[in-house]
Amino acid sequence: MDGIEGVLIDLDGTILKGNQSIPYADEAVAYIRSLGKKIAFVSNRGNLSRRMCYERLEPLGIAAAEEEIILSSTVTAQFLREHYPLCQVWTLGDDGLREELRHHQVPLARVPEEADFLVITLHETVTYRDLDLAFRAVHHGARIIATNIDKTFPNEHGNAIDVAGMVGAIEAATGRKVELVLGKPSCFMVEAALRHLQVPPCRCLVIGDSVESDIRMGRMYGMKTALVLTGNTKRSHLDALRAKERPDYVMDSIYDMICIVEEAMR
Amino acid sequence: MDGIEGVLIDLDGTILKGNQSIPYADEAVAYIRSLGKKIAFVSNRGNLSRRMCYERLEPLGIAAAEEEIILSSTVTAQFLREHYPLCQVWTLGDDGLREELRHHQVPLARVPEEADFLVITLHETVTYRDLDLAFRAVHHGARIIATNIDKTFPNEHGNAIDVAGMVGAIEAATGRKVELVLGKPSCFMVEAALRHLQVPPCRCLVIGDSVESDIRMGRMYGMKTALVLTGNTKRSHLDALRAKERPDYVMDSIYDMICIVEEAMR
Repeated sequence: MDGIEGVLIDLDGTILKGNQSIPYADEAVAYIRSLGKKIAFVSNRGNLSRRMCYERLEPLGIAAAEEEIILSSTVTAQFLREHYPLCQVWTLGDDGLREELRHHQVPLARVPEEADFLVITLHETVTYRDLDLAFRAVHHGARIIATNIDKTFPNEHGNAIDVAGMVGAIEAATGRKVELVLGKPSCFMVEAALRHLQVPPCRCLVIGDSVESDIRMGRMYGMKTALVLTGNTKRSHLDALRAKERPDYVMDSIYDMICIVEEAMR
Repeated sequence: MDGIEGVLIDLDGTILKGNQSIPYADEAVAYIRSLGKKIAFVSNRGNLSRRMCYERLEPLGIAAAEEEIILSSTVTAQFLREHYPLCQVWTLGDDGLREELRHHQVPLARVPEEADFLVITLHETVTYRDLDLAFRAVHHGARIIATNIDKTFPNEHGNAIDVAGMVGAIEAATGRKVELVLGKPSCFMVEAALRHLQVPPCRCLVIGDSVESDIRMGRMYGMKTALVLTGNTKRSHLDALRAKERPDYVMDSIYDMICIVEEAMR
């Protein structure tokens, strides 16, 4: 951790498993804080607001300030607010996305026909009516943005359909395509994290369970990268990794952070 | 033109028809200049470099400075250079794209397997081998960017397959999706034009033949908009336009600009 001033920490698969904590994740986060490092929690979750995310982490003993939480919903809202302040938005996704858009004063369209953009994220209670309203927005000229484009996420049945499924429905029905994906490993997420951390990339460490989003993101920016095996990636996958996907460190879980640092300091 | 300080002018269908000039487009451009307005030529052409574009305009009597020409290839190169300076790029498209990337010092991958991004644009001489090399880039982890996503463009046979066709081939073969489209009406194109013009959007006029890209772009930014009927849009289409697509002015051709302004000044 010598020379590292900022740590980007993924949530699902790194800190959280569903609504539960990964064992000792709270201690690991507290330890990183005790070393004086700045933290950004960076997650592709577009269906939560930062407030909802805070309320999930707090009972698990992980006290995250709201500005430390960088979700794809947050970054989508910031992007729309900055670049399209005059535009109206329709959403296909869980309530957290709308809460985050409202928090950033992004104008929400009253009816789908008036929308300039349709923003799509995971919608775990989606109905035919939701799909049809989103279809109408695009059919009347709204352009499509996705908070992220993950195909599946792990749940108690194995894998569950994720944002890519919602996107596929709208693209197939309208013949229009997504024009912008904000989630990791995009520059939009990294740059939001760096603005919060105020640390140059070469002094940052990314900790995450996904080679494709966490490790890729870190490597594309010249950050140090640590892969944890508590989520998507298994030890058996490591041999097949290409050079540009290889993390600097591999840890069984984020808790190993403590052992590695203590070891190095001995 | 009172209050207008900057004019964004589309190329194909507004100034150009194939390699020919739209009649009197040169006089119209000269007239706009004579009024002291700043000009940006804003085109979704991603398969030309600015140098190639300059060389097309100059023999037609339209002297455009290179920094006045804002192509989707230009904006893609600037975006990659600014946000991903460490990343290597593979391309599927005509040579103009590569020339523009090189001009902006974007690193080009030696082999597709090393690329972090595949950038797709129109490729009018595409071969199976080109598609396969692009496929290999994405299959080995490159993320997909498109300069624009137009489906067809008009040529001497009617309509010809455009960038969306190249994108479709790669998406279908790899199961991966485009994450970013830079072309009009995106904020990336408008903001590049505004940086050049140094004029606030409310003092800009957009002149173009496409309701979807030119008029939409202008309206989303609060610019004045003028639709010309020398390209994609016919007078018979006007009645069906939605409120958010309606231009402030409709002109048979960009030459009418002169008559309208002279009339207003009388």
